[in-house]
Amino acid sequence: MNTVSSDLDILNGEFLAMPPVQAMAIRATGLEDGVLSVTAPLANNVNDKACAFGGSLVSVMTMAAWGLLSESCRRKNIDADVFIADSQIRFLAPVFGDLQAEASLHTDTQWDAFFQTLLSKGRARAITQASIKGEQGQTLCEMTARFAAIRKKTG
Amino acid sequence: MNTVSSDLDILNGEFLAMPPVQAMAIRATGLEDGVLSVTAPLANNVNDKACAFGGSLVSVMTMAAWGLLSESCRRKNIDADVFIADSQIRFLAPVFGDLQAEASLHTDTQWDAFFQTLLSKGRARAITQASIKGEQGQTLCEMTARFAAIRKKTG
Repeated sequence: MNTVSSDLDILNGEFLAMPPVQAMAIRATGLEDGVLSVTAPLANNVNDKACAFGGSLVSVMTMAAWGLLSESCRRKNIDADVFIADSQIRFLAPVFGDLQAEASLHTDTQWDAFFQTLLSKGRARAITQASIKGEQGQTLCEMTARFAAIRKKTG
Repeated sequence: MNTVSSDLDILNGEFLAMPPVQAMAIRATGLEDGVLSVTAPLANNVNDKACAFGGSLVSVMTMAAWGLLSESCRRKNIDADVFIADSQIRFLAPVFGDLQAEASLHTDTQWDAFFQTLLSKGRARAITQASIKGEQGQTLCEMTARFAAIRKKTG
């Protein structure tokens, strides 16, 4: 029986292959209904104030959004490279626990149109949104980011 | 004789005390005319495409801007904590070499006003700009970020 998390073995292998992502111990934990969940321990990502380093918060949200697009392409059997183009981040409150991020498509991007453009033109843009929430569900940090997916040449 | 870089020992000690910053091997190399220079080796920060991971680019620029404000407060004998509030990043081209970032105040913030507000009100905001440039001086990545500095209670 396949569980959701074993389905993410390839993605987590890609995460681990990047030294800074391995150092921050960022790991995908689930992909359901177009939402990728990612986690990282506070210990690897702590700053001078005993809370999470801003660069780690951005990295975790970036990997959640990048992973969402990469894994979704893979599940459509589309071999594509995914690049970040720009991002806007708001740090609303310090994160004193492990980092739990979720990423999904922004309402301005639809999966069907994204895949169709990627297949027909060889590249497509996607806007993503990601956040890190606290134990009571309050948003501690949020990111909107644009990515470009470029289909790999085959053969 | 003090060199500029030995003057940055305290700041680099603060960098090293943060596990993710130590893992990315981010180091301040100079502070001159209101510009803090920061560097990090590509090896610690590489992604799946043999260029720098987006989260590392953001981390290096964030440390340059945070370091600029922290070190500038220290040199004014102001004991303050510096927090990031928000940031906007544009990734213009992949970074295939070591990461070299520079940060300075954005033109909307003046040092005199920043220090004056921090001393009189106990807190002040600053807008910073940072970039990572290539060997030919072209901008590969740029960030605008707002920070809050809060003076520490003494005694």
